[in-house]
Amino acid sequence: MRGGGIRIGIVAPASRLEPAIAEKAIALARMLYPDRAPVLQFHPQCFLSSGHFAGDDETRARAFLDVANDPTIDALWFARGGYGSGRLTERVLAGLTPAAERKTYLGYSDAGALLAALYTRGFTGLAHGPVPADLRREGGEAAVTRALAYLADRSAIALEPTVSASGLTAAFNITVLSHLIGTPWQPDLSGHVLMLEEVSEQMYRIDRALWHITANPAMRRVAGIRLGRCSAIPPNEPDFGQSAEHVVRHWCEVSGIPYLGAADIGHDSDNKVVPFGRLRLA
Amino acid sequence: MRGGGIRIGIVAPASRLEPAIAEKAIALARMLYPDRAPVLQFHPQCFLSSGHFAGDDETRARAFLDVANDPTIDALWFARGGYGSGRLTERVLAGLTPAAERKTYLGYSDAGALLAALYTRGFTGLAHGPVPADLRREGGEAAVTRALAYLADRSAIALEPTVSASGLTAAFNITVLSHLIGTPWQPDLSGHVLMLEEVSEQMYRIDRALWHITANPAMRRVAGIRLGRCSAIPPNEPDFGQSAEHVVRHWCEVSGIPYLGAADIGHDSDNKVVPFGRLRLA
Repeated sequence: MRGGGIRIGIVAPASRLEPAIAEKAIALARMLYPDRAPVLQFHPQCFLSSGHFAGDDETRARAFLDVANDPTIDALWFARGGYGSGRLTERVLAGLTPAAERKTYLGYSDAGALLAALYTRGFTGLAHGPVPADLRREGGEAAVTRALAYLADRSAIALEPTVSASGLTAAFNITVLSHLIGTPWQPDLSGHVLMLEEVSEQMYRIDRALWHITANPAMRRVAGIRLGRCSAIPPNEPDFGQSAEHVVRHWCEVSGIPYLGAADIGHDSDNKVVPFGRLRLA
Repeated sequence: MRGGGIRIGIVAPASRLEPAIAEKAIALARMLYPDRAPVLQFHPQCFLSSGHFAGDDETRARAFLDVANDPTIDALWFARGGYGSGRLTERVLAGLTPAAERKTYLGYSDAGALLAALYTRGFTGLAHGPVPADLRREGGEAAVTRALAYLADRSAIALEPTVSASGLTAAFNITVLSHLIGTPWQPDLSGHVLMLEEVSEQMYRIDRALWHITANPAMRRVAGIRLGRCSAIPPNEPDFGQSAEHVVRHWCEVSGIPYLGAADIGHDSDNKVVPFGRLRLA
């Protein structure tokens, strides 16, 4: 990689990022890597606002492609989740150039829709993992430090502990994956260990989405499911009476998918990196 | 049909029904049809409670099959929506006998998951329409009167006004249909006018579900979409800035599906009957 640190381009295909968070991320990167600080290049689109989104669909897709297709940028980092990445799949896939394939992509939650779409194109540098907006969380520096360790050095310490070079993995937010089922952007996860997590969804919704995901014939070809953390679950009326683990175990049993235990991912500062496909160390 | 009125069996594949509502429905039927009152046979399962559901999956599926397979019952009426019908699809489809095919089925919202599953089996007596639990609504008697007019007489007054014998139709709750996409129970709606409605979902969720539905290649073969009422939409933070009609028009345009205008359906007392497939007058 050229000169000092790697160059990371940041875009926001969903909700907007506060400029103060970008500044915090840049300062953290400089502190962590004094000699070879990663260059965090926040695309101005990150800070736009258009209703629910960080700019309209066309603007967000163009910004994504600006970064993805730039051969001088090593990695595309999703600024944050929210909602809106899925709206860009057709535009983004139509505009990719070969430079985009050689890049690392890191994000989670809503970003899963674009990661999935890129995975259907055979991209090998995709990963689930923390984003700059995690700096808003208590202890968020640890999450962003982990993301930078992955982006800069592929540091093993950043990885979800069951990830290894010998297996295929992928990680998704449950609701986001549910909305990809049956679309052209549903990734082929045959033989993958699928890690799932959720936040702020009632238990009946988690149950319904897992019913949906595990009912899809292609999804039944995963090697197994690991359950990450399902946090901030709003109360159910009446109480659902089952934990997320109970629910995922149930649908694994119904669908014949092996349940493999817990995954160390979630909407929190402990969220780890999970590569899509096989772990690539270079 | 034998003797006085038709026999309607009521089951609750999702949430439980209060017994008082069943009594109100029976009294209304007797008042409306003094000489040939439809016999409303509420299966005892309607009043069970198991966490979120009106009994566990096995109990609810068995009750559904009790009614569906009973040759002395003319129609199966869903007691209400809620959540849980989709959990029963495999069990129900595995247990149907020929008597089930000759029946009318009426329900909406969560019931759409079972209506869809039965439609994949070629059932011709399925319809979206009001349920006994609509009696809890203000003006709910009008909704239940409409449902009974459809069940007892196929009265045209009960129908959604654009329904005719010359076209194919279907109606779904948006979120329920989204969760059927890519499953074995996704109905083939080629050439159908698809009517959609929603309740109590934030606008970004409606947008995401419509993106999902219209991205599915098979769904793009519908004749067009009509939008019913989307009610009780919780506020969005930040405001989504678009109405449900704007959102559905957008996804129709993106997907090439004709947008055909409004549909007179929704989670309210004005909800009309929409047959699945071709209107059957006998």
